[in-house]
Amino acid sequence: MDLDLANGIAVLERTPQTLRAMLTGLSPAWIDATEGPGTWSPYVVVGHLIHGERTDWIGRARIIVAQGPDRRFVPFDRLAQFHESEGKSLAELLDEFERLRAENLVTLNGWQLTDAQLDLTGEHPEFGSVTLRQLLSTWVAHDLGHIVQIARVMQRQYTDAVGPWRAYLSTLR
Amino acid sequence: MDLDLANGIAVLERTPQTLRAMLTGLSPAWIDATEGPGTWSPYVVVGHLIHGERTDWIGRARIIVAQGPDRRFVPFDRLAQFHESEGKSLAELLDEFERLRAENLVTLNGWQLTDAQLDLTGEHPEFGSVTLRQLLSTWVAHDLGHIVQIARVMQRQYTDAVGPWRAYLSTLR
Repeated sequence: MDLDLANGIAVLERTPQTLRAMLTGLSPAWIDATEGPGTWSPYVVVGHLIHGERTDWIGRARIIVAQGPDRRFVPFDRLAQFHESEGKSLAELLDEFERLRAENLVTLNGWQLTDAQLDLTGEHPEFGSVTLRQLLSTWVAHDLGHIVQIARVMQRQYTDAVGPWRAYLSTLR
Repeated sequence: MDLDLANGIAVLERTPQTLRAMLTGLSPAWIDATEGPGTWSPYVVVGHLIHGERTDWIGRARIIVAQGPDRRFVPFDRLAQFHESEGKSLAELLDEFERLRAENLVTLNGWQLTDAQLDLTGEHPEFGSVTLRQLLSTWVAHDLGHIVQIARVMQRQYTDAVGPWRAYLSTLR
């Protein structure tokens, strides 16, 4: 389906509470679980989402909305969370994500974007010209992809524990 | 990792609130979205989870714990939700799931299972002998797999909307 702004924002609004409900109070066995070397734990994913709130989505949207002479996006650092999350508890990260997301949605809602504005473009460092509609759709899809990832990382911890039921759990294969 | 009963129950406890946070108040565009003919929407998945609470997990666990002469499980109906959910709103289903899950966890916690009990077995209609440990691990993994599914179904609605970013969203491919 195409981006419907209200429907997209509805998902963006829910992600902080979804992560809170999934993860708050779980033991390190879940929070720090990965899918193997070089893959991300739920804790790392939350830090990555925070970095996106700080530097990616709304900043790029602002560049497009402003339509200044230079509409190039700053490349996104996908590993920033490994130093930015240092020393922080998961509870602190969840609070930070919730606060930043809420602030960014106030900004987004404040723009009262029209369909014409959603067709405005910026310059992605790799893809070239992209529309605001694509950027906002990707913000939504990115949230959902990381919810997929967190639940999948956790599920895979039980790949062996489920025994023969593995055959029925398609997301484990 | 092996099943740690407290860690497993921690996930089971969180699923109702996770689904509530993800789905409450979303439009039918999300709630009734599927991945194509014959695939399940978030609404259908919640009904399926309810059916599992009613007929699958705790009932099978009870058969194992009791160690009666007949330890065969009743086959699980994976399509029951298509008639059982009829006429119910998603909000009603989420309430029902939360209530049933809470009741089942009271039962499970009440058993105060020992490691020796977790090694007791029942007869799965297809797999044959399975342990209580495997059954309870599967209950946890099944929850997580359906959270994966719901987020994935939602994300895939934006497969085209994200434009070139599709290349970066591994869960879309």
